[in-house]
Amino acid sequence: MADSTRPSDRRYGTRPTMKDVAARAGVGLKTVSRVVNGEPGVTADTERRVQEAIDSLGFRRNDSARVLRKGRTASIGLVLEDLADPFYGPLSRAVEEVARTHGALLINGSSAEDPDREQELALALCARRVDGLIVIPAGSDHRYLEPEIRAGIATVFVDRPAGGIRADTVLSDSFGGAREGVAHLIAHGHRRIGFLGDRPHIHTATERLRGYRAAMDDAGLPVDEAWVSLGPTDPGPVRAAVTAMLTGPAPVTALFAGNNRVTVTAVRVLAEHPAPVALVGFDDIELADLLGITVVAQDAAALGRTAAERLFRRLDGAEEPPARIELTPTLIPRGTGEIPPA
Amino acid sequence: MADSTRPSDRRYGTRPTMKDVAARAGVGLKTVSRVVNGEPGVTADTERRVQEAIDSLGFRRNDSARVLRKGRTASIGLVLEDLADPFYGPLSRAVEEVARTHGALLINGSSAEDPDREQELALALCARRVDGLIVIPAGSDHRYLEPEIRAGIATVFVDRPAGGIRADTVLSDSFGGAREGVAHLIAHGHRRIGFLGDRPHIHTATERLRGYRAAMDDAGLPVDEAWVSLGPTDPGPVRAAVTAMLTGPAPVTALFAGNNRVTVTAVRVLAEHPAPVALVGFDDIELADLLGITVVAQDAAALGRTAAERLFRRLDGAEEPPARIELTPTLIPRGTGEIPPA
Repeated sequence: MADSTRPSDRRYGTRPTMKDVAARAGVGLKTVSRVVNGEPGVTADTERRVQEAIDSLGFRRNDSARVLRKGRTASIGLVLEDLADPFYGPLSRAVEEVARTHGALLINGSSAEDPDREQELALALCARRVDGLIVIPAGSDHRYLEPEIRAGIATVFVDRPAGGIRADTVLSDSFGGAREGVAHLIAHGHRRIGFLGDRPHIHTATERLRGYRAAMDDAGLPVDEAWVSLGPTDPGPVRAAVTAMLTGPAPVTALFAGNNRVTVTAVRVLAEHPAPVALVGFDDIELADLLGITVVAQDAAALGRTAAERLFRRLDGAEEPPARIELTPTLIPRGTGEIPPA
Repeated sequence: MADSTRPSDRRYGTRPTMKDVAARAGVGLKTVSRVVNGEPGVTADTERRVQEAIDSLGFRRNDSARVLRKGRTASIGLVLEDLADPFYGPLSRAVEEVARTHGALLINGSSAEDPDREQELALALCARRVDGLIVIPAGSDHRYLEPEIRAGIATVFVDRPAGGIRADTVLSDSFGGAREGVAHLIAHGHRRIGFLGDRPHIHTATERLRGYRAAMDDAGLPVDEAWVSLGPTDPGPVRAAVTAMLTGPAPVTALFAGNNRVTVTAVRVLAEHPAPVALVGFDDIELADLLGITVVAQDAAALGRTAAERLFRRLDGAEEPPARIELTPTLIPRGTGEIPPA
């Protein structure tokens, strides 16, 4: 069997199987199964040979839909970025629902947007024997996960891409969504449009900024750099940025808010502003319909569901090259995005 | 040393210490430390005696602020009820922040409001060697955690009380908060007030209903049972319940919504209703300030922080009887709660 001669340093998605172990050890499949499950009926010598084959191939028993060892439930880990960001609530719940249909538990943790903590948490979950991992990256280098992936821990990245490794990735089209949202404001007559985004090391922030610039460029509109602000999404800095854009020498007549945290603060500031200012926000927000806030909505649940389904296909043995799946966000006009320039 | 003679079946909060192990084994503290940390310099016989003492006392090394074993980070588990409920976002983040200051990781999971899943998850986290556990209960019987607590896993319940065991519990005063909210509506002239709550097996739902009845009773007002609805908090059933209360033979002029999920749907239904109806909701909601929604706000972050601090005090060796800590919610008048009867 050709499989049994593969090096233990395999590429992603070609995890060794029990069949590989049996071939390498020169025993039957049932014998491997007995060793893996700790059942009797195997001589010490055979057990040693099987164990050597397991070690050299990097085999790891990993059938997600069943209880893996006596009393142990299959589990997958999810590394979030911020536990308090409502965007991750439906995403997490969707992952959990898929895990549940596969008889697996979901264990979460948060990096709190700290790359070191992301690594610490992801490795802690691996050490606690999760069968697969879904990561919303805080950092940009994920080579630390290579040994885990080689050891058979299926890994899918969601919301932001992985860095330095090839892996399944599920994203929203941040560039296209922002471009559409800004084009919507331009179509309603705006020429001076502000962009408020998250910190510049965050992939979605720079992609959305790129979408903003593309839409302005598409319409032949110049961008005054005073209209662009990337930074922390806490209320204080966002409030200051909005105020500066509304009161500068070339005040904006419309704002594009780069995520839900920014939109919430922008809505508050605009509610106090004497003149109407148009607003489109990336991400939907609870009660935004009642407040008439126009948004480019990501489907957070679909992101989570897609990532989890991809993960379980890997765990169920699918052998295909890593894919990048991009979901298209939806522009929802509700009022604020259709306000004409003052 | 009297401690060394305690039975292994100890009560909560009196975990055996290394000193207990040393006394029981008749060795010095340093020897116990060597055995626990796998350091050299201990004879096989001594190691065996120490191990026996550890086993008989149920000792478990459990110093939260340090790395416990080589390469293993201290961790605590949090069993949530619903990953998508925004109430748990700030609660989880507050727990995480306290864990972080103690050098520990937080691992979450959700029961999805299913008592069996709560048990499965809590025990899975214990099996994955969390040092402590914070539980938002879905079930009403937590005796399954007794062996874990005896084995040294500190456990704190939050948001809802534990059932069948004595344990630290951190709650909001649901009864008092609802009573104050309903009294506020009565003070604004309402006599026919509806109560919309979560399913009746949920502790906070029945406590808030009790607060509603107490406020009505305080004011000498009768309660028509057509004004009371407990059930699932999905939009469909809540919408039906609100509509029934507004169109029945004795229509209500005000509503008290028992939690944030219910309030969101009630706000939507009332926005379509021709006549103004007063509303007070339990739990604050993002953007409720801009929509002028009067709420009885729980401090979700304070609940999480208080529970986590309690947990780490236990992990740091505090030996005190289990306590029930009740935080007082705050009435925030913003408009909907001050609408007079039609």
